[in-house]
Amino acid sequence: MSEQRTSDSPFQARIANVVEALADADADAMILTPSTDFAYLTGAEPALRERLLALGITATGTVQAIAPGFETDAMVPVTEAGIELITWSDGEDAAKLLLDGLGLGAKPRIAVGAGTPMRFPLEFMRHRDISWTAGDDILVPLRMRKSPEELALLKAAALADDETYRRFLTSTEFRGRTEFEVQQDLRTHLEATGHDLAGSFSIVAAGANAAMPHHHSGDTVLEDGMGVLTDFGGPRDGYCSDMTRTWSLGPASARLKEIHAIVLEANRAGLAAVRPGVTASSIDAIVRGVIESAGFGEYFIHRTGHGIGLDVHEPPYLVAGDETVLEEGMAFSIEPGIYIEGELGVRIEDIVAVTSNGGECLNEADRSLLEL
Amino acid sequence: MSEQRTSDSPFQARIANVVEALADADADAMILTPSTDFAYLTGAEPALRERLLALGITATGTVQAIAPGFETDAMVPVTEAGIELITWSDGEDAAKLLLDGLGLGAKPRIAVGAGTPMRFPLEFMRHRDISWTAGDDILVPLRMRKSPEELALLKAAALADDETYRRFLTSTEFRGRTEFEVQQDLRTHLEATGHDLAGSFSIVAAGANAAMPHHHSGDTVLEDGMGVLTDFGGPRDGYCSDMTRTWSLGPASARLKEIHAIVLEANRAGLAAVRPGVTASSIDAIVRGVIESAGFGEYFIHRTGHGIGLDVHEPPYLVAGDETVLEEGMAFSIEPGIYIEGELGVRIEDIVAVTSNGGECLNEADRSLLEL
Repeated sequence: MSEQRTSDSPFQARIANVVEALADADADAMILTPSTDFAYLTGAEPALRERLLALGITATGTVQAIAPGFETDAMVPVTEAGIELITWSDGEDAAKLLLDGLGLGAKPRIAVGAGTPMRFPLEFMRHRDISWTAGDDILVPLRMRKSPEELALLKAAALADDETYRRFLTSTEFRGRTEFEVQQDLRTHLEATGHDLAGSFSIVAAGANAAMPHHHSGDTVLEDGMGVLTDFGGPRDGYCSDMTRTWSLGPASARLKEIHAIVLEANRAGLAAVRPGVTASSIDAIVRGVIESAGFGEYFIHRTGHGIGLDVHEPPYLVAGDETVLEEGMAFSIEPGIYIEGELGVRIEDIVAVTSNGGECLNEADRSLLEL
Repeated sequence: MSEQRTSDSPFQARIANVVEALADADADAMILTPSTDFAYLTGAEPALRERLLALGITATGTVQAIAPGFETDAMVPVTEAGIELITWSDGEDAAKLLLDGLGLGAKPRIAVGAGTPMRFPLEFMRHRDISWTAGDDILVPLRMRKSPEELALLKAAALADDETYRRFLTSTEFRGRTEFEVQQDLRTHLEATGHDLAGSFSIVAAGANAAMPHHHSGDTVLEDGMGVLTDFGGPRDGYCSDMTRTWSLGPASARLKEIHAIVLEANRAGLAAVRPGVTASSIDAIVRGVIESAGFGEYFIHRTGHGIGLDVHEPPYLVAGDETVLEEGMAFSIEPGIYIEGELGVRIEDIVAVTSNGGECLNEADRSLLEL
């Protein structure tokens, strides 16, 4: 079983890409502690704790992982991926064990994961004169281009988020209940559709609260005539969903209808503009242009979108200044919004993947201004 | 109000201690990102995100905080503590702003918080040739010695944990329900007694499951004759509680009574040994000695205790090798246990503070082997 898994698994190929990139970047090694980077290269998701647990990869192809002896259960995928695992006990110097195991010299240049807590680099620096470089320079380009298997997991997560919305709309009592109570129902549906609640998120913002893009659901009671912004998702089988829909409790006002139509047009214009070869910033400009042309430019107060994968927010970012050229396999949110303080807010968000000749919208849930 | 708060607040005195320690340690500055260290010195608890938010302190007494413009709400305590706050917007180089604001030269020696994600040191290293040192070397000795105000908060948290236990025992239906269901009740009581559920923890381990020190409450149904280990606590007004009690559902077996009595004796021997001037490791040796003398040494498979304060686990550690000399104001758990695989487990944990002439047990909840 274990050998079967090794040959089928994507991790050796991903590590080979890192080895090649390290050589190109004139770096001697990469060291990663528990993170989505670690999961991307090993399939393992150990918790980030105070004792050193790390993956080391050198430009010459040496690959070693190190973990406390009591963490071996969490490291099973690492050994199944064919990676040598060193275990250590209290009293041993784990940082030295890994540096020596990787065969690193006195002054190595090491790429390190962005989320690595400084306690670990400080341990390594006790043994070597290290020049640190950003592991993101190597990992971001690799992780941005998703494989067909990764895209299938993103699609499954998006469909689960669609199903969350469907169940939420059909089974929730809205009238006379608070945002917080309604949000708890939304969380129940997220869990029931396979999301990991630990990493999930959900926003229910009613009426004027929807004008705050990251409103915390609170004591506001839902009443007829309110627009309600709902934004929810999270990791499912490792890959994340993220979707926003805005709907009306009872008949929608003319104002809400007008603004919803503009935001939906911007959302659809963004999807239509996606294709390999254009920049992330150009999608932002097109989406923003729709809202500006309608006279609401000053009310679209955030970026158009963010990449998504093992992390719910990851590169590329659809924003002025991100000149990432889109390639087949990239995936990101398109989430225009109009927020009018004290009055209302509308956001419509979908996850979109770049295909060979355009963009594929992974979410299928009804985007229209439903009147519930 | 704000000036009143400033003069009453402990933060300026804590920062002055850091300034003095930086000079003694031949370091030019300390930089902290959101963490309990940051909260200790400012009273603010902003979330740790991807954009730079930091506190900088130099050995010459310059103190500056920097935060994204949209995080100013979370930084109100920082300005109330009399600390200068710089805000920055996308497009500005926040790392350079802080380094320049602190007046640091070309090759500074900077102490950094242990939990700081490497993305931030990497940003600072783009502008200066920095020698990094461990901020813990300065902060751990300061944070270990709690002020009377901090001890009062720890006492209040401990009493809230006592009250959690009392409510849990008197209002929970145990028989025929799963560990998980019972644990949910325990969480409700933690919240009702003022604990922040986001950082809290609770373990309900029944029968043989109690032999696993960090068992995840699961599907095991509680039945008469089982010993039940319950370990619960978390932050309350910033400072943490942590207590373990082991009790019996129905009449306790002779074996459970025997082992419970040994663990309780070890717990009490630890408390009796606490006083200024002895080492953390010596308390571990005394507690362990009681269990070894009774013939169960091999079944006490973890350290005797951990410091507690803003973090639920912090120095000192009551374990062989931690030669911290106890001082008045230190606080830690004493939590001996005996774990017999496949059979049962007993742990009795209290939080203990070091007073001028001994140890004060902050928890008062009944330690006896209750038969419920």
